[in-house]
Amino acid sequence: MSDTKTVRFGLLGCIRFASKFVRTVTESSDAVIIAISDPSLETAKTFATGNNLSPETVTIYGSYEELLNDANVDAVYLTMPVTQRAKWAVTAAEKKKHLLVEKPPAQDATELEKIVEACESNGVQFMDGTIWLHHQRTVKIRDTMFDSGLLGDVRHMYSTMTTPVPEQVLERLTKEAMGLAGAIGELGWYPIGAALWAMSYQMPISVRALPSSVSTNSVGTILSCTASLQFGSTATTTAIVHCSFLSQLSTDLAISGSKGSIQMNDYVIPYKEDKAWFEYTSGAKFVDMHIGWNVTPERVTVDCSGTPETQEAMMLREFTRLVEGIKRGDLEADRRWPEVSKKTQLVVDAVKKSVDIGCEVVHL
Amino acid sequence: MSDTKTVRFGLLGCIRFASKFVRTVTESSDAVIIAISDPSLETAKTFATGNNLSPETVTIYGSYEELLNDANVDAVYLTMPVTQRAKWAVTAAEKKKHLLVEKPPAQDATELEKIVEACESNGVQFMDGTIWLHHQRTVKIRDTMFDSGLLGDVRHMYSTMTTPVPEQVLERLTKEAMGLAGAIGELGWYPIGAALWAMSYQMPISVRALPSSVSTNSVGTILSCTASLQFGSTATTTAIVHCSFLSQLSTDLAISGSKGSIQMNDYVIPYKEDKAWFEYTSGAKFVDMHIGWNVTPERVTVDCSGTPETQEAMMLREFTRLVEGIKRGDLEADRRWPEVSKKTQLVVDAVKKSVDIGCEVVHL
Repeated sequence: MSDTKTVRFGLLGCIRFASKFVRTVTESSDAVIIAISDPSLETAKTFATGNNLSPETVTIYGSYEELLNDANVDAVYLTMPVTQRAKWAVTAAEKKKHLLVEKPPAQDATELEKIVEACESNGVQFMDGTIWLHHQRTVKIRDTMFDSGLLGDVRHMYSTMTTPVPEQVLERLTKEAMGLAGAIGELGWYPIGAALWAMSYQMPISVRALPSSVSTNSVGTILSCTASLQFGSTATTTAIVHCSFLSQLSTDLAISGSKGSIQMNDYVIPYKEDKAWFEYTSGAKFVDMHIGWNVTPERVTVDCSGTPETQEAMMLREFTRLVEGIKRGDLEADRRWPEVSKKTQLVVDAVKKSVDIGCEVVHL
Repeated sequence: MSDTKTVRFGLLGCIRFASKFVRTVTESSDAVIIAISDPSLETAKTFATGNNLSPETVTIYGSYEELLNDANVDAVYLTMPVTQRAKWAVTAAEKKKHLLVEKPPAQDATELEKIVEACESNGVQFMDGTIWLHHQRTVKIRDTMFDSGLLGDVRHMYSTMTTPVPEQVLERLTKEAMGLAGAIGELGWYPIGAALWAMSYQMPISVRALPSSVSTNSVGTILSCTASLQFGSTATTTAIVHCSFLSQLSTDLAISGSKGSIQMNDYVIPYKEDKAWFEYTSGAKFVDMHIGWNVTPERVTVDCSGTPETQEAMMLREFTRLVEGIKRGDLEADRRWPEVSKKTQLVVDAVKKSVDIGCEVVHL
């Protein structure tokens, strides 16, 4: 069905968004989709047709169980609602399937811990689908700004993920569909993850939701929230994270350091696939008489054209590299990716807890 | 000494920063500097030499009183330390001098109220020196984004003014030099004013300093602070404002609305004098499969070259237009500018109060 160097994927869930993953796999030489599944066989069949997945090469299952029992499947991509992810992720790990799980991978850190433990004890790779971490721009910023010293110590961050949902849909965002953390899990995952990334995964010592920022719908799902994350034992680094289903699309990431600052407004999904940029200043000051600056922002552009170098392709490449290594027996499952997920989930949980206790401080 | 259409200025205070004002007046046909003053005559003389102010046309005084007794002076520009501004601003108004006062114009709203009352009862114009409000870019944003509907209702804002002070200087930032509000008055004036401007001077209903964000030096001067401002009776609009003497220079203003968003990183002082820009998106959404955006940010550039069109020149033009109108008897003092100052000061005070009471919510 495929050579041994190729990772054979099965889909657990056939939501529309999974088309992006199909496209990425189709363009890749490292992976192939050999099975898809959905509790509704009809949905799975429609998805197959819509995504040019031929029944000759792709088995279509009307249940997740059947796919997980397919011994030809090496790895699964989970996109079902977050409330079901933990159950099926654990089952998949027990079936020795490597796991690529859409974010948020679980409803809370307890669920995620169970998933990661199941992966570890079954020797399979876990990775959540936070794509931007794999973008070449992200790597470039690390090299250019952090490692070089142009940024200095991080002092202040601001990050958002807001995307509007039509008013009539807001009421349908139930806890069953969205998980307990609502927008904090679904959207806040990004700005919280961005703050952690900028801090090299040092954990905040405390978080606090801003009382005035929290909106919920009539069934109690959190629709918007702004929170502050405090890093370090003195007031040295603060991150403001903002997520909302009530605002226009925004994906801002601003990082201010002791020497420079970084600015992006499309960190989650770049405006265009073929290139992405960030802007920075370093050593900025007002010129004499304060009539201007000594610098203007430098724009650093990363070319992603040519061979498929989208962030999805980069994520798939990293995942398949690990899975192939494990299959060959050269590698153990990489614990860095589950660690990144777990830390992000812990902070998501802490912000959610702050909301629950009247926006008081939650210490981590 | 000058024709009747020209506003004759005197300087109260000869700090280095006042050179910018001298330059602006020198390039203007609407104003002239006829006197300068400083408690140190030596300082005033050095300033005159350093700024090419000839003793033949500019009287140099060793006290503010003497300048205020000079009947030829129409208007004064106050730059002395904030702790002295209220006293001298009131005296100047009583001497029938129009007032352009560096920001923050006072230590608190009570002081500012006294200044504004003195100006009103003496029929003189009051304006604080928040230059960016006069920039053509600011006007352009109002037209392009707000009035046109491209932005929609403001939902979320983020604004900063951070500028580093050398470590050995931080301890010298005393309350005598900086006023009671420290960085909140000196720097926070800008992001707070920006949030108010974006809300068309609707006042917030509450503010709260973020506990983890407040730093002070050993003498209790506030060096950094992040605060949230809540507008409207439901959780509809939040502004995050951040000011600090501990971070690299940053002057960010991001405004997210129900339809679009605006981005600037140099709203206080544009990178360059001859042009300034802002970026916006409107109607932004992810394209199908979430592999990019349907738009990229539009950059709108305002040309400020040619005739002097710097923000300082625009501010001076507005001020002299009002003063000339009052001198001719065509205009009464414009109450909009003092209103802008008073509202900004009230919010500065509220943030300061929140810091004082352990970062609890302060209702306005």
